[in-house]
Amino acid sequence: MKINYVLLPAILFINVIAQAQDQSYDKNDSLVVRSIFDEALMNGESYANLNYLCKVIGKRITGSQAADDAVSWSKSVVEDYGIDSLYMQSVEAEHWIRGDKESVAISEDAAILLNACSLGGSVSTDGPLQADVVEVAGMDELKAYGMGELIGKIVFLNEPMDKKKINTFNAYGACVAQRYSGASEAAKRGAVAVLVRSLTTLTDVYPHTGSMGYEDGVIKIPAAAIATRDADVLHRYIDSLGTAKVTMNLSCYTSDRVVNTHNLIAEIKGFDNPEQIIVFGAHIDSWDKGEGAHDDGAGVVQCMEVLRLFKEMGLKPKNTIRMVLYMNEENGNRGGNTYAENAKASGESHICAIESDRGGFSPRGFSIDGTDSQLVAVSSWQKLLEPYGLHYFKKGYGGVDIGPLKKKENRVNENLFLMGLYPDSQRYFDYHHSADDVFENVNQRELELGGASMAAMVYLIDTYWYLFGE
Amino acid sequence: MKINYVLLPAILFINVIAQAQDQSYDKNDSLVVRSIFDEALMNGESYANLNYLCKVIGKRITGSQAADDAVSWSKSVVEDYGIDSLYMQSVEAEHWIRGDKESVAISEDAAILLNACSLGGSVSTDGPLQADVVEVAGMDELKAYGMGELIGKIVFLNEPMDKKKINTFNAYGACVAQRYSGASEAAKRGAVAVLVRSLTTLTDVYPHTGSMGYEDGVIKIPAAAIATRDADVLHRYIDSLGTAKVTMNLSCYTSDRVVNTHNLIAEIKGFDNPEQIIVFGAHIDSWDKGEGAHDDGAGVVQCMEVLRLFKEMGLKPKNTIRMVLYMNEENGNRGGNTYAENAKASGESHICAIESDRGGFSPRGFSIDGTDSQLVAVSSWQKLLEPYGLHYFKKGYGGVDIGPLKKKENRVNENLFLMGLYPDSQRYFDYHHSADDVFENVNQRELELGGASMAAMVYLIDTYWYLFGE
Repeated sequence: MKINYVLLPAILFINVIAQAQDQSYDKNDSLVVRSIFDEALMNGESYANLNYLCKVIGKRITGSQAADDAVSWSKSVVEDYGIDSLYMQSVEAEHWIRGDKESVAISEDAAILLNACSLGGSVSTDGPLQADVVEVAGMDELKAYGMGELIGKIVFLNEPMDKKKINTFNAYGACVAQRYSGASEAAKRGAVAVLVRSLTTLTDVYPHTGSMGYEDGVIKIPAAAIATRDADVLHRYIDSLGTAKVTMNLSCYTSDRVVNTHNLIAEIKGFDNPEQIIVFGAHIDSWDKGEGAHDDGAGVVQCMEVLRLFKEMGLKPKNTIRMVLYMNEENGNRGGNTYAENAKASGESHICAIESDRGGFSPRGFSIDGTDSQLVAVSSWQKLLEPYGLHYFKKGYGGVDIGPLKKKENRVNENLFLMGLYPDSQRYFDYHHSADDVFENVNQRELELGGASMAAMVYLIDTYWYLFGE
Repeated sequence: MKINYVLLPAILFINVIAQAQDQSYDKNDSLVVRSIFDEALMNGESYANLNYLCKVIGKRITGSQAADDAVSWSKSVVEDYGIDSLYMQSVEAEHWIRGDKESVAISEDAAILLNACSLGGSVSTDGPLQADVVEVAGMDELKAYGMGELIGKIVFLNEPMDKKKINTFNAYGACVAQRYSGASEAAKRGAVAVLVRSLTTLTDVYPHTGSMGYEDGVIKIPAAAIATRDADVLHRYIDSLGTAKVTMNLSCYTSDRVVNTHNLIAEIKGFDNPEQIIVFGAHIDSWDKGEGAHDDGAGVVQCMEVLRLFKEMGLKPKNTIRMVLYMNEENGNRGGNTYAENAKASGESHICAIESDRGGFSPRGFSIDGTDSQLVAVSSWQKLLEPYGLHYFKKGYGGVDIGPLKKKENRVNENLFLMGLYPDSQRYFDYHHSADDVFENVNQRELELGGASMAAMVYLIDTYWYLFGE
């Protein structure tokens, strides 16, 4: 036999793929996955749990009573599932408070009130603040101004999300900087406040809030989001009159007191390798608008459902499977950081971390933050999972909460990889961080399919954990 | 060279696939497809058109003034797009009228009113009809009764849609017989009426109507759908008391007069082969509940958008591309049949027919009713279309309206194949044929992506029409 050494690596690689595809699951796995989906669709509890979380507990920003109630409630629900180990992990975080004043108006004789809300983390205006508005199309246009060129102005950052991007998260990522960093960039140039166009592909009347941060050493100026429809109103006003004077009144502030709040940790011990952990989670805090239904109530109840499915079906994991409901994803990520720091201190070894934080929509697959061979291993389950609508297995982002686990300083297992549940993205930013992110906008079947997808993925990674080593 | 004749067919087949994948599109196609999606998402008119169709024209059952208005309106909209040829095609159809009486109640001292509606095509009860109810779990259980064993009874067909089926259309297909044929099977056994559990995966309070038919030579008895929640109420009532007496009062009837109504046909002539036709369409009639938003207003405005995109972008098709908005899909399919019969009589040759009638949800691909090699040719565009969320290209159903074109007696081009736009199915039966099928339940981006997907598919089939011959 003559061997072609040039082609050899390619042939070997093809063999690896073929092997992975042939050997990485069997008939029993097909039956288990089928049973997981059957149980979630016929007897699932995620929808009823989401109803409770949204309608009884409601919005739950870090530091609020509702946020703590949400942790206690989820603990009691999961306790009923008969979990091996269940505890709350202390998380110290800042507490930002919206306050009762939140108005933005074009200051005419008959003022035009704009639908607006403070951005999370913003300082207050310290009473009514009136100034002329300078509109910019986005961060680049703002940065083109020299230092001191915007003294006394309110900067209006009006970059719309790009509707042409099919995955709406890409459109969000492309312009979220104006919300997060717009205030400090404007302040450097002398501005006294910023208004930011809401990040949604819709033209609607809801201001969409979200986190913003201040650069060290730069004066802190107040920042508010205005609804896209109202951003268009303000734009046309400036366009026709050349200028606009706006009055802002925001009473938001960050409490001096650091709050002591919690992550919830619940696990089923591994029967073969209890010291190896597969962690899956979502964040239990939400913004203080709406009910945090898609962001991230959906993820929370899907993760609780994973535990229920394992217990209900009597699945015995080889490795420890652990759910973490993280506090404070929205404005600080102290929950995710605390979990990762503690895991490092205890020397806990994680095989992988999975997150559901892209809304309770029809799942399409998973994005994978790992090596090529880890992607190949996960992709080898594609045929098994396609009947459930899961076809997307590509390199991509894991999630905010699980990110710290993979940081060099926190990593225990060098082969740790991250995964994010990847649902259809078309509707996500219709609701995101707005008063319209409510239970009614979540569909039961879509939510249940997402929970079952998470459970199936945890089951497969647990069963074939040895594929994800070196 | 030694040829292995056993392997030869397999090798040739692989070559065909490889060739198709390599050669069936080029860089220009990528740019055109990108432009189609950009235009639909940035300047699309489908959402505004759907708003008009749903809110100004509204529900539009065949024979109603609104159905005729919908045809005239869509003609005027398409006319503005500058179409080469635009005309209405006469369609003779039956006119079924719901009438003003539509009540079903458990006849106690304090009657329990059930949310119910007549099934399309049903005869009236001719005044209040009271009888004892016999519940059956579905058609099999009904057929187990002997002839004459249900004399004087109202049969309650209570088979739920199977939530475990991931594609909800499969769950619908598995139990739609109880709605369509339940009445005649019950009548053969002596029953005086039927009540049918609504076909939805939700537990809701909307009765979901739909078509039913009578078998020749069997006495016609009235048929009504009851909401799933109310079906559960009736089931529990019978379960606890052993029986239930129900009073039905339905005033529906089919008019003696055949109505003269229309399909709308609009085309852009082919520059190379004007005699070869690629037809795409949807049905313009709807049930007389809700606004026919997903079923099939979404398909209608998506097809109109295909024409607009071709004209707006200056795309010049090689073959004639033709939109047909079919009348009467819901209760008779006279539009689809008339179109096919006329096409046959005129000797018109169709390359393929595409339909959008599965709701305005995120598109996932197309189902293909054609040969293996036609599937291979379409699938060769998968890589081109995947960035737009289109990954599903499998053998499957085309659509009700286009079905008659492929019947042996109507076929002109023996190579004709059918395709159906294949959106996410999870929410479809929440709204289907109910008062909740309204504009508000259609998402703009999802709708627009579907229209762009249709346009991209028409463009590709037109460009590579020669792949679909023998």
